[in-house]
Amino acid sequence: MIAVVASTHWLTAPQERAWRRYRRMRTLLDLQIARDLSRDSGLSEADYDVLSTLSEKPEGRWRARDLAAQLLWSTSRLAHHVGRMEQRGLVARQPCADDARGALIILTEQGQAALRQAAPPHVASVRRHMIDLLTADEVAALDALAGKVITHLVGEVPAELPPR
Amino acid sequence: MIAVVASTHWLTAPQERAWRRYRRMRTLLDLQIARDLSRDSGLSEADYDVLSTLSEKPEGRWRARDLAAQLLWSTSRLAHHVGRMEQRGLVARQPCADDARGALIILTEQGQAALRQAAPPHVASVRRHMIDLLTADEVAALDALAGKVITHLVGEVPAELPPR
Repeated sequence: MIAVVASTHWLTAPQERAWRRYRRMRTLLDLQIARDLSRDSGLSEADYDVLSTLSEKPEGRWRARDLAAQLLWSTSRLAHHVGRMEQRGLVARQPCADDARGALIILTEQGQAALRQAAPPHVASVRRHMIDLLTADEVAALDALAGKVITHLVGEVPAELPPR
Repeated sequence: MIAVVASTHWLTAPQERAWRRYRRMRTLLDLQIARDLSRDSGLSEADYDVLSTLSEKPEGRWRARDLAAQLLWSTSRLAHHVGRMEQRGLVARQPCADDARGALIILTEQGQAALRQAAPPHVASVRRHMIDLLTADEVAALDALAGKVITHLVGEVPAELPPR
């Protein structure tokens, strides 16, 4: 008689090490990039993500529901965050009486200026703390593996790069 | 006469794509792993991180300041989070009258049981949404590149894997 024991398929040692390092890199990098961004530009990562995503459309305006989906935020998180950015003059909102999620979020001139000022030190920070540390092969491997995970999780590859 | 213009060293197209995909993977994966963990075990990622880190020491106890440093949390974040876990019986605290940061955080039997129950579905979730999607070369590349970033950011490689 053979005893069948349900057993967990644990990670192998190399897999576990990669997973732990990935998680540690993620946490350390988030902290460092956020620290640099705040020091250099007074923006949070969330502010930067909203501004840079808005700027990807030539007219600088998104429907709230589409912007939330693009950022992977809930519509209520977006509404709260954008409300605070609106008070600082970085974005404007054009409400839609019938449908709050259909409201337009608009990049203001002040928001554009903040993004223009923030982008160069932010790119330098991304280079310094990650990209410039990697070989071209590592950049390609990161691109490929992240693409696989994204495809698995959303069933589609991310949109192509927008024009600068 | 040569005009010298200070210019930003923007990312190349492959670098920018890798950076964007890394960030999107991070966000999607965090959401999915947290969703699975909550559904399967009723734990948050922060709960799981505290429990699994405590379990790495044979006696299941850490000084609060060391645990905070290991998790890359502020001591106040740790104190708040551990306070809530204590109310659920997952950890206990042995305060140190002279030095709050020197207090001991202890894994309870209930916390051990919760971790034992949570670990198998959590590992399955990590496999399903990331590790099993990757080739051995991609796992090795992720390990190597994360190691470089971590070394740069903390000036030391992460501790070796603890024994199971």
